[in-house]
Amino acid sequence: MSLVATPKDRAALGAFYRRVLLDDVIPFWLRHGLDREHGGMLTCLDRDGALLDTDKSIWFQGRAAWMFATLWLTVERRGEWLDAARSCVEFLRRHGHGPEGKMWFSVTRDGRPLRMRRYVYSEAFAAIAFAAWARATGDERAAEEARRAFETYLRTSFEPGVMTPKFEPTRPSKGVGSLMIGIVTAQELREHLGDAPVGGRAPTEWIDGFIGEIERDFLKREHRALMETVAPDGSVLDHIDGRTLNPGHAIECAWFVLEEARRRRDARMASLGVEILDGMWERGWDPVHGGLLYFTDLLGRPVQEYWHDMKFWWPHCEAIIATLMAWRMTGEDRHAVRHRLVHEWSFRHFPDPEHGEWFGYLHRDGTVSQGAKGNLFKGPFHLPRMLWMGMRLMEGR
Amino acid sequence: MSLVATPKDRAALGAFYRRVLLDDVIPFWLRHGLDREHGGMLTCLDRDGALLDTDKSIWFQGRAAWMFATLWLTVERRGEWLDAARSCVEFLRRHGHGPEGKMWFSVTRDGRPLRMRRYVYSEAFAAIAFAAWARATGDERAAEEARRAFETYLRTSFEPGVMTPKFEPTRPSKGVGSLMIGIVTAQELREHLGDAPVGGRAPTEWIDGFIGEIERDFLKREHRALMETVAPDGSVLDHIDGRTLNPGHAIECAWFVLEEARRRRDARMASLGVEILDGMWERGWDPVHGGLLYFTDLLGRPVQEYWHDMKFWWPHCEAIIATLMAWRMTGEDRHAVRHRLVHEWSFRHFPDPEHGEWFGYLHRDGTVSQGAKGNLFKGPFHLPRMLWMGMRLMEGR
Repeated sequence: MSLVATPKDRAALGAFYRRVLLDDVIPFWLRHGLDREHGGMLTCLDRDGALLDTDKSIWFQGRAAWMFATLWLTVERRGEWLDAARSCVEFLRRHGHGPEGKMWFSVTRDGRPLRMRRYVYSEAFAAIAFAAWARATGDERAAEEARRAFETYLRTSFEPGVMTPKFEPTRPSKGVGSLMIGIVTAQELREHLGDAPVGGRAPTEWIDGFIGEIERDFLKREHRALMETVAPDGSVLDHIDGRTLNPGHAIECAWFVLEEARRRRDARMASLGVEILDGMWERGWDPVHGGLLYFTDLLGRPVQEYWHDMKFWWPHCEAIIATLMAWRMTGEDRHAVRHRLVHEWSFRHFPDPEHGEWFGYLHRDGTVSQGAKGNLFKGPFHLPRMLWMGMRLMEGR
Repeated sequence: MSLVATPKDRAALGAFYRRVLLDDVIPFWLRHGLDREHGGMLTCLDRDGALLDTDKSIWFQGRAAWMFATLWLTVERRGEWLDAARSCVEFLRRHGHGPEGKMWFSVTRDGRPLRMRRYVYSEAFAAIAFAAWARATGDERAAEEARRAFETYLRTSFEPGVMTPKFEPTRPSKGVGSLMIGIVTAQELREHLGDAPVGGRAPTEWIDGFIGEIERDFLKREHRALMETVAPDGSVLDHIDGRTLNPGHAIECAWFVLEEARRRRDARMASLGVEILDGMWERGWDPVHGGLLYFTDLLGRPVQEYWHDMKFWWPHCEAIIATLMAWRMTGEDRHAVRHRLVHEWSFRHFPDPEHGEWFGYLHRDGTVSQGAKGNLFKGPFHLPRMLWMGMRLMEGR
């Protein structure tokens, strides 16, 4: 029933993830995405790798630098990986920052600014990029840049009044996204730079705070649901936006919590991660066509976002990691069964048999909606991170 | 082959549109949408009319007021229509405006502000609402409110530096949307308040300017395409956003131009409208499943917006109007054939056989993606306007 029943199964699964990562996905992005002219990573690529748009997302300079530096640190000392990471790090340094230090959302191929957004995920991804780069190369300046980017992230996300508000103060709300990304960013900083304070607290303290707030304000045990958005006091906002759940996002959150629990050998924290995963798997898994629905409604009502029932690549990547990690930590069958379900659904529908890598956007029934390999939001991150995590989990790490 | 071949066919089609409008669509919104407690129109309604969200869009207070006042002016003097229009006009007056006179995008049920957006479509819809209301009731204050709303629309849309920019100045662009909505808003003001200057020019002069700019900068004859976004000098921006076409939107623009041509008996202008319609029909009509695709790419490349191949109700409404009007004006068969195609596809897939009105959001293959009757963007506008226009066109008006 599962792909992880015997040591031999596990070795085969790990070898499979390694092969897809190193022979398919990473070569695709090195060949087609790495910008040998202006540096950095181009992600708007067609099915065959042809360039659809020269614009670059700043998110992806950080995400790609992190991925390549991490491969160099944990898999093999391949020069081309370190070079790719360097190219993205240098692009970030030259072109990442706006006049007041906040980072751009997108820039032209040669780094001229196109768009600034309210939120600060560019900063979170830059922080993990600089941290991994500092660890890989001993570059002290990068360590400082990582801390500074995380400080901007923390200040803009959590200090009242810093982020430009999207809504009027009539109905205040807060999102789970900044807490989740706070966890994984703090984890990476601690991994590479140690647990010394950043923005006034040790990364471990930040993580405690984020997980505490998620459990207290976003987890609704009576609904078996993790909310995306709640009122500042954690109450449910019974409006379309307030009821909208993002199962893949919550499942990603679940494994950030599981990862922390595993590192600390904290059984209570582990059971919190499993609780989020169990509830949101039940809400997200499509009983008709399989795969994970993008959005669902807390009360089962219609969802307003047009792509609510599409199947995106990234929630499937996150669910493969989460189910595999939950199985590794608990040994409980349901996680192995779910891992097999989402692994098999994903590898049946997302890979492009002709040009490699994964399609990103499928209809509910699993047919391809559009065949491009990337855009400003899809590039070398969720898929290679999943393959890398899967490989390592099966290697016992 | 067509639904309009004989006078008897045309009478039957007109009667059909009238019946759906007066026996199904308008009663649905009066029964479920009209807010008898706080006034104005609620649009976030489930399939059966149950309230999904109490938030109100300011767009829809104007759109609904315009629709109900227009029915009162042109179809019958029904008191419940005038009452509905009054309720929305009064809600707009009480709760529509932010501190600096710009109108909100959304408010709570009782009118407290939720969101301000950069753009000014709330103002355009308020302008046509106040204009029709002034005509229906002789309310001089409303005529002045209509002019003021249109002035805000014009200043914010076209005076450089007034609208908060979304992008940095690196790659300037302009959209066809403000010109299109400018045309139809000026037409309504002229219809109800005459052609006296507003914002420094007569409505007819504004319309001349808008149509001229659309033809000069947005129509690409070599591609048989009307662009959504171009550089300020009209050149194509060869990036994903710049190449993205919205066939339903362009087809709506086509009938705004045809309407103007018909009023002026201007053959050159009529052929411009037909040219836009012909080109964008060919680009939008789905050869596989029928219906109109939401977005396509100028060069046939993948489109980034996730819902690019979904079938939304409103482009179908606009295409029914445009093809019928083009047929009425030219007598050419291809328009009658296309009208029949889009009419039959729409009435086969969008109506809800159980609770009436139309579903808004279908998958590419015509199956329902989500069954709600409304949200902040769908309410009593595109569908009743199409039925009203179709009925009048078949009655020879």
